[in-house]
Amino acid sequence: MRILASNTKKFMIFLSLLALLTNVSTTATQKTHHFKPKKYYYTYDAKHEPVLNLKPGDILVTTTVDAFGNKISRSDQLASEIIHLPKVNDQTGPFYVEGAEPGDTLVLHLLKVRPNRDYAVSTHLPNFGVLTGETYTAMLNKPLPEKTFIWKLSLEKNVGILDLPNSKIGKVEIPLHPFLGTVGVAPNFGEAVISLTPAEHGGNMDCVETKEGATLYFPVFAEGGLFMLGDGHAAQGDGEICGTGLECPLEVTVKVDVIKGKSINWPRFEDDEYIMVAGSTRPVIDAFRSAQVELINWLVEDYGFERWDALQLISQVGVTRIGNVVDPKYTVVAKFPKRYLPVH
Amino acid sequence: MRILASNTKKFMIFLSLLALLTNVSTTATQKTHHFKPKKYYYTYDAKHEPVLNLKPGDILVTTTVDAFGNKISRSDQLASEIIHLPKVNDQTGPFYVEGAEPGDTLVLHLLKVRPNRDYAVSTHLPNFGVLTGETYTAMLNKPLPEKTFIWKLSLEKNVGILDLPNSKIGKVEIPLHPFLGTVGVAPNFGEAVISLTPAEHGGNMDCVETKEGATLYFPVFAEGGLFMLGDGHAAQGDGEICGTGLECPLEVTVKVDVIKGKSINWPRFEDDEYIMVAGSTRPVIDAFRSAQVELINWLVEDYGFERWDALQLISQVGVTRIGNVVDPKYTVVAKFPKRYLPVH
Amino acid sequence: MRILASNTKKFMIFLSLLALLTNVSTTATQKTHHFKPKKYYYTYDAKHEPVLNLKPGDILVTTTVDAFGNKISRSDQLASEIIHLPKVNDQTGPFYVEGAEPGDTLVLHLLKVRPNRDYAVSTHLPNFGVLTGETYTAMLNKPLPEKTFIWKLSLEKNVGILDLPNSKIGKVEIPLHPFLGTVGVAPNFGEAVISLTPAEHGGNMDCVETKEGATLYFPVFAEGGLFMLGDGHAAQGDGEICGTGLECPLEVTVKVDVIKGKSINWPRFEDDEYIMVAGSTRPVIDAFRSAQVELINWLVEDYGFERWDALQLISQVGVTRIGNVVDPKYTVVAKFPKRYLPVH
Amino acid sequence: MRILASNTKKFMIFLSLLALLTNVSTTATQKTHHFKPKKYYYTYDAKHEPVLNLKPGDILVTTTVDAFGNKISRSDQLASEIIHLPKVNDQTGPFYVEGAEPGDTLVLHLLKVRPNRDYAVSTHLPNFGVLTGETYTAMLNKPLPEKTFIWKLSLEKNVGILDLPNSKIGKVEIPLHPFLGTVGVAPNFGEAVISLTPAEHGGNMDCVETKEGATLYFPVFAEGGLFMLGDGHAAQGDGEICGTGLECPLEVTVKVDVIKGKSINWPRFEDDEYIMVAGSTRPVIDAFRSAQVELINWLVEDYGFERWDALQLISQVGVTRIGNVVDPKYTVVAKFPKRYLPVH
Repeated sequence: MRILASNTKKFMIFLSLLALLTNVSTTATQKTHHFKPKKYYYTYDAKHEPVLNLKPGDILVTTTVDAFGNKISRSDQLASEIIHLPKVNDQTGPFYVEGAEPGDTLVLHLLKVRPNRDYAVSTHLPNFGVLTGETYTAMLNKPLPEKTFIWKLSLEKNVGILDLPNSKIGKVEIPLHPFLGTVGVAPNFGEAVISLTPAEHGGNMDCVETKEGATLYFPVFAEGGLFMLGDGHAAQGDGEICGTGLECPLEVTVKVDVIKGKSINWPRFEDDEYIMVAGSTRPVIDAFRSAQVELINWLVEDYGFERWDALQLISQVGVTRIGNVVDPKYTVVAKFPKRYLPVH
Repeated sequence: MRILASNTKKFMIFLSLLALLTNVSTTATQKTHHFKPKKYYYTYDAKHEPVLNLKPGDILVTTTVDAFGNKISRSDQLASEIIHLPKVNDQTGPFYVEGAEPGDTLVLHLLKVRPNRDYAVSTHLPNFGVLTGETYTAMLNKPLPEKTFIWKLSLEKNVGILDLPNSKIGKVEIPLHPFLGTVGVAPNFGEAVISLTPAEHGGNMDCVETKEGATLYFPVFAEGGLFMLGDGHAAQGDGEICGTGLECPLEVTVKVDVIKGKSINWPRFEDDEYIMVAGSTRPVIDAFRSAQVELINWLVEDYGFERWDALQLISQVGVTRIGNVVDPKYTVVAKFPKRYLPVH
Repeated sequence: MRILASNTKKFMIFLSLLALLTNVSTTATQKTHHFKPKKYYYTYDAKHEPVLNLKPGDILVTTTVDAFGNKISRSDQLASEIIHLPKVNDQTGPFYVEGAEPGDTLVLHLLKVRPNRDYAVSTHLPNFGVLTGETYTAMLNKPLPEKTFIWKLSLEKNVGILDLPNSKIGKVEIPLHPFLGTVGVAPNFGEAVISLTPAEHGGNMDCVETKEGATLYFPVFAEGGLFMLGDGHAAQGDGEICGTGLECPLEVTVKVDVIKGKSINWPRFEDDEYIMVAGSTRPVIDAFRSAQVELINWLVEDYGFERWDALQLISQVGVTRIGNVVDPKYTVVAKFPKRYLPVH
Repeated sequence: MRILASNTKKFMIFLSLLALLTNVSTTATQKTHHFKPKKYYYTYDAKHEPVLNLKPGDILVTTTVDAFGNKISRSDQLASEIIHLPKVNDQTGPFYVEGAEPGDTLVLHLLKVRPNRDYAVSTHLPNFGVLTGETYTAMLNKPLPEKTFIWKLSLEKNVGILDLPNSKIGKVEIPLHPFLGTVGVAPNFGEAVISLTPAEHGGNMDCVETKEGATLYFPVFAEGGLFMLGDGHAAQGDGEICGTGLECPLEVTVKVDVIKGKSINWPRFEDDEYIMVAGSTRPVIDAFRSAQVELINWLVEDYGFERWDALQLISQVGVTRIGNVVDPKYTVVAKFPKRYLPVH
């Protein structure tokens, strides 16, 4: 099953690359930019100076550091002594995309999203995570014990390995599925949002769907869109229960595009199997509702579904995944299988 | 992908049947009971008279009617004129299992869960579903339009077909994955719970996981366990968004068992890929927490995981599915992949 | 302020008694019943045998034990060793009211609600309360320390006194405002509900509003209504944060009545200042919505408010109180000041 | 009751003014600033240029416009055609307070908060409010009808009057209790927050407690604190159910102060009767928890309560009010009666 999916993905990436090559011949101005970040941001904010200008069709090759600014490498290091919430999720960018104006949609084709380090870090931070009292679900209980886990990454085998000497199993080896924990654009209405929080502009959605091969759509709220990215995860379970995934730096290649005059309310994703919407708010049920309603609107407006047919169909074949339930806003991804879309 | 999964499932059922055959030779008292329901219940209640006594190891062959008591067969029939919420989900049972006492665990091996009708019904009921005001999320808005959809079922092709003349796609054909929307035991502390509500005793969890090939574990709260089942769905999306799946009657074969002295807090499921817990309450986040904490306890108590190792691992490889967000309590299923369990 | 309110209350009770005397002269059959409970119930259930038959207009004089069955009297007693959740809130009743049929409204005039003991008990139970992980908001944190507080009650001074030797203040003295923590009727649709849970039938609402001088209205779901009462609190703050109030036994006098053919969805209360609705569910926002929508419907149906006028007015003069956020369902009370009602 | 309260308030304001006069003689540098706003802000943002510098002890006399920028004055004007959510709640400020640094507490004594117009506006906006689908509680239902209500204000009689010709009552007259719907400081960590959203920095809390006579405490996150104010309400019910109060411009007099080295997590208020904390987040239960935990910490740190004594006492005498359940975050105010505080 996984082999098939993986092959399909490879084939899709191949097609994307082919498309790019094809474009190159027709678009004389297309350009590949190699950007090496010198500083990182902790807020999504239209007031930040863009680090680079891109044109629609351009390709960006860059890197991200991990959620802890690459400062943790040993299990005896405590994150609470090294980083200070919410100053985490150091972001690469912002990147200005020419022609992207409020009311448009910014398109990011994720051509490459790969760890570039042989370990990943996961932490249990005090008062962070969904199974303990935390900043907003404030409790009088004492925090859980703080822990730092160092996962070995084998990039050629595409696995992560964790020693668990205190557990009967001794150690586990899991497949990697690297993705951008955080990706988005400058927020609406002059707001500035910390890189720990997801919202309409994207940001810290912690969705496994924002991975190599996916296409991401964001509402443009500020001139140039001003997208940023970071918080790489080599793997993560649904909901990011303890508050962190396999945190690692990434190599990222993105092709940018703009859909003029196309206005959307929430980040939308697309891969070979699904069209998707990521809704972010608290409580979970409202993130769920936000995502589903936007998905139904998408089906009605772009794919010719009658409204109540769309509701019926999404009720029977819709897939929903909980992205995170640990950030200041939670993220739910509503997915509709592409095979039930009419041929365009 | 689906073919592989389907084959695995078939092989597992074959193994189960083999196990049964083997058991038969060794367990002289094992018995297969054919039960044809004459009346149905709308509450889970230890005060109901059991319809049949079973012994651990026995096999029950029976049927269920659909959530509407099989009373709807045409798209011009309005459910609101035919059924009266919450008098839906007619239950077959209760079945008394000898030796099952409070503090034990009742085991149901679902050997067969198959639709026995060539159509299924899905409705959009007024003030029901998650994308509209409903009984508890009370709103002042007018209800959505009521609708009845009749899905044709082809049991040999294992698909459901719906005509959508008002939508560009015209019609859809989806694979079936039949399951029991409602299954559980008599509740705790003398409570009686309508068959529309899921809780610690199971009930209307609306989980696609309670399907052919799965093994279900329920806490025993009353002598004999007193399990019931009904509300068959030929298919359903995550969350059961409009409030109904592909509602249909089922043929069900169950092998029952009892684990003496094993006490659990929430229904647990098991298939070839996962061990799972179904937590049911409102809001979603608390159903999520209930399921995850029970799953961590399971990993610690039965599989030798150190507590914080279990939290770390579940955070990285845990799968979570939203069962329903439309019933009086919502259901979330927390899943842990069996391949990360130590060999027993 | 409080003196004025208290006087108003006394006057209202005087009026009630006057009304009763007046009724006596016209209703030859009115009767006062003295009932001394011999057993108590832990569920609201239409299947319980009524302990007494009352006629509309009759007066019931009875007593309740405290939430712990009067078993705790010293601060060195731990509730977790003496009682077993949810077997608390021992209920007096059920009382059958002749002529009360499903679809009617049962009326309880609370003529007297007074503690009959010189101390009250409040406990901090492990995994109970809103500022700690609990049964449904399941957490991995260790529970808070268990505590038992014994409040001295001075009934003639109407105060409760608690020694706090570990706090700078040393001791506090607070005014009492005794009320029934739990009061309600047999639930709908054959459900049985533990006396720890509030819902449409009333039950464990833990509302300070259900006190001497108030009139309570309950939907009748079963023949005779079958009301019960218990869980006296001598005082309690909003939300019952730690999970218990000043738990004490009560002397209760109730005049019963029936409004034939009047159907309501949630318990309604009335005192000299407000008409009120108590909505109970999780999460809080849905208890809030349930109560407000029912209150708006009440204003529209009984008091001639246009629907959107009622919404506007409730938005500007509505008072909302959080009853409890610790029971399996939370209770919110929506209140509309009587002085903005048209004269009947 | 209200007369007494009102007198107490007047006396307290008299005392405040007396204190100011006294201060004047001793504090040669104290100054009264009259500020007439020329522009308004729609975000709380440390990057905004301050409009005025104040010293601790200084008094600010200024005005605010209403939530709609004073653009609505007739009931036939539709807000949806005049304003554009979230561009509402025009803020006066920001004001820089010398010596206020991150980690300090900014103090605002509200000496005067009075409407300066003879009418107030309340609207029912489409998809706004708690009893209808809205931005985050996204629904498929059609919005409620849009409405504009013009309340006549009589400032000498301190009442608001609304004609309700479609309702039996015909018209209502309610007492005014004017307050700042929005007041706060620049947010933490470089965030910028629209003036529709409350959070740790204050902002759009919509709390009736931020009224004349109250003292407000805010955590200082940016140099100078940079407080702003606006969104005057002449009156409002609990929760601001329809989404708006009696919106009106205000005359405001504030005395500012700084508590050096005092760090708080949430806005705190104080009046003659209560010490209070305003917690803002979704869902309600977490706003509730945030406020209560901060209030318990306050009792422990400043008033010498043992932790579990504080929990017990807050459970029995604590008052909780729902500020708003309509903004992007909800606000809950936890109150502790001052009469149970030890004498300092």
